[in-house]
Amino acid sequence: MEHIENDDNYAGLSVNKGISQPPTVNPYLQKMRKARRRLYTAGEYVEGILKGDMSILSQAVTLVESNLYEHQVLAQEVIEKCLPYTCESVRIGITGVPGAGKSTSIDVFGLHVLKKGGKLAVLAIDPSSERSKGSILGDKTRMEKLSVHPGAFIRPSPSAGSLGGVARKTRETIVLCEAAGFDNIFVETVGVGQSETAVHSMVDFFLLIQLAGTGDELQGIKRGIMEMADGIVINKADGNNIEKARLAQAQFRNALHLFPPTPSGWQPQVLTYSGYYEIGIKEVWDMIDEYILFVKKNGYFDHKRQEQSKYWMFESINEQLKDHFYRNPQIEIMLREKERKVLSNEQSSFMAAKDVLDYYFNIK
Amino acid sequence: MEHIENDDNYAGLSVNKGISQPPTVNPYLQKMRKARRRLYTAGEYVEGILKGDMSILSQAVTLVESNLYEHQVLAQEVIEKCLPYTCESVRIGITGVPGAGKSTSIDVFGLHVLKKGGKLAVLAIDPSSERSKGSILGDKTRMEKLSVHPGAFIRPSPSAGSLGGVARKTRETIVLCEAAGFDNIFVETVGVGQSETAVHSMVDFFLLIQLAGTGDELQGIKRGIMEMADGIVINKADGNNIEKARLAQAQFRNALHLFPPTPSGWQPQVLTYSGYYEIGIKEVWDMIDEYILFVKKNGYFDHKRQEQSKYWMFESINEQLKDHFYRNPQIEIMLREKERKVLSNEQSSFMAAKDVLDYYFNIK
Repeated sequence: MEHIENDDNYAGLSVNKGISQPPTVNPYLQKMRKARRRLYTAGEYVEGILKGDMSILSQAVTLVESNLYEHQVLAQEVIEKCLPYTCESVRIGITGVPGAGKSTSIDVFGLHVLKKGGKLAVLAIDPSSERSKGSILGDKTRMEKLSVHPGAFIRPSPSAGSLGGVARKTRETIVLCEAAGFDNIFVETVGVGQSETAVHSMVDFFLLIQLAGTGDELQGIKRGIMEMADGIVINKADGNNIEKARLAQAQFRNALHLFPPTPSGWQPQVLTYSGYYEIGIKEVWDMIDEYILFVKKNGYFDHKRQEQSKYWMFESINEQLKDHFYRNPQIEIMLREKERKVLSNEQSSFMAAKDVLDYYFNIK
Repeated sequence: MEHIENDDNYAGLSVNKGISQPPTVNPYLQKMRKARRRLYTAGEYVEGILKGDMSILSQAVTLVESNLYEHQVLAQEVIEKCLPYTCESVRIGITGVPGAGKSTSIDVFGLHVLKKGGKLAVLAIDPSSERSKGSILGDKTRMEKLSVHPGAFIRPSPSAGSLGGVARKTRETIVLCEAAGFDNIFVETVGVGQSETAVHSMVDFFLLIQLAGTGDELQGIKRGIMEMADGIVINKADGNNIEKARLAQAQFRNALHLFPPTPSGWQPQVLTYSGYYEIGIKEVWDMIDEYILFVKKNGYFDHKRQEQSKYWMFESINEQLKDHFYRNPQIEIMLREKERKVLSNEQSSFMAAKDVLDYYFNIK
């Protein structure tokens, strides 16, 4: 009977049940808990997931996140069996500058969504997360109300060797959550590397949380993110900050008008709100509802999801094609030498590439 | 004695000499011209290029652009021999919406640059160009004054099977031009596919030509281009249009402030000018001079060129890795079936990718 590892490490909270429990040092209780966490069969996982059993869902997600080969094989079986059962869901990506109040906002947005009925899974993509430290995203201690809500399922970011690995595991976790009836999915990310692009490629609506700056300079968000956003929401529009927030809103609206039309045909909106004081929350979600209606009506919703499915297949292929090449030890050595030659104008970039590729295709 | 093909097709103008000649239908003259165009040895091309012989430079560029295997082998030899001789140059990418007045602007910008001394090569990247039709870019009939200036060398876009091919040939043409003493290089592109990204990756300064719109909506430029620009210049700031141009200038300046700092540390500027009436030309070039001074001083100039050289090596590798995979007939068949399965939720994107890759890596 195998034990699933990594279950009690996350800040002393059991991640199995999806709700936080006070840390315990009772060894007998721990031993009992470990004994319960055996591996089920794929069918048992699927059955539990389809019933909406949060504990089994949680263990299945842990399986997906595991880097052990046996776990991965079993996880793929579970995923494949869950694929046909996906529910009608809405997936929302949420990003924002550090300090923008993402966790507080997700807490209050999440509760608002749950009030309307349904269930909510909050996932995260943070390529820099390490199991021992825990990610700053998906931190239940910061989503106080959500973390004790029976309809909410919160997971920190998986850790993996690469963004591609993290993105894949999150994408697969979404499959399990939707099969378990979670019709609302949040995927949170912070601005690390290409993580926003990854999140944008697995959600229906991409929400950018911004802050009003000091003066008229609003920076911190990476180039390209603003153009990805379906909605920009400016937080901390309360008290003395209201004027600045409205100014920022006007500036972002002007900026958005300089961009060409979006593929969806939707004109991205800019709203202000206050996560902490819970002002303007309904308006933010009305905007998202309006968007979903709009893109379902014009067919873009389904079209985008199909494009995303294909994207992940080709993205996966392209990443592994490159991995296979660049991880070859001989290739690594050749490339270092070629880089030197190219930088010192001894060889053109293209001939250097050709030489290495000739070698690669001939050693197969 | 081989004839170099494709030399008289371009709108009846001889591309060999770099200056436009009236179209001729004198068959004897054509025959003589063909007889002169034999292939030199690599050493002869290089010698001619280093002397600044425009005719030999032109023939060498035609060699680079040729898709014939023997020409390519010879071209690579010439390029490699030219690599160490690159002069101190400035490479400027120029893009803009159709109708923005690019050709007129390049004509007047080019003359301004030449007035200060030195030589100017005007190249183009247009992946949609076909030899028989000729590209709309690099059209000498539109660059009237420049095309008769002895210090100017103008080429239309090469044609190739892909953007990657066109970009490569242009990049290699730059090498030859610089070896021939062309210290100013313009690379023009129109907004097709990823051609701006390709141009941005081979120039020092990226100039975006915009127009003032009707009202406050200035569209037409693809997402991501504005963020690539080191300078945005708004054309047709003359007569009744001056007010609109200044309004557009203000809007773009506001928008640029919303973006995070550029890697170079340079704050992109927005200027207005009139290509047709030759107003504000000096200011545009003062901006570019200021930029070059700035990035040479902080080391970014050299750093960027090195990164670009490496970029083209890895880009070339990645493109050919994909080509080798996706052009395999069995893979093509498998992928069509896998796409179907993924879209109908029968298989996850990632498992579909894995199946195809297992097959690919095992048939080598």
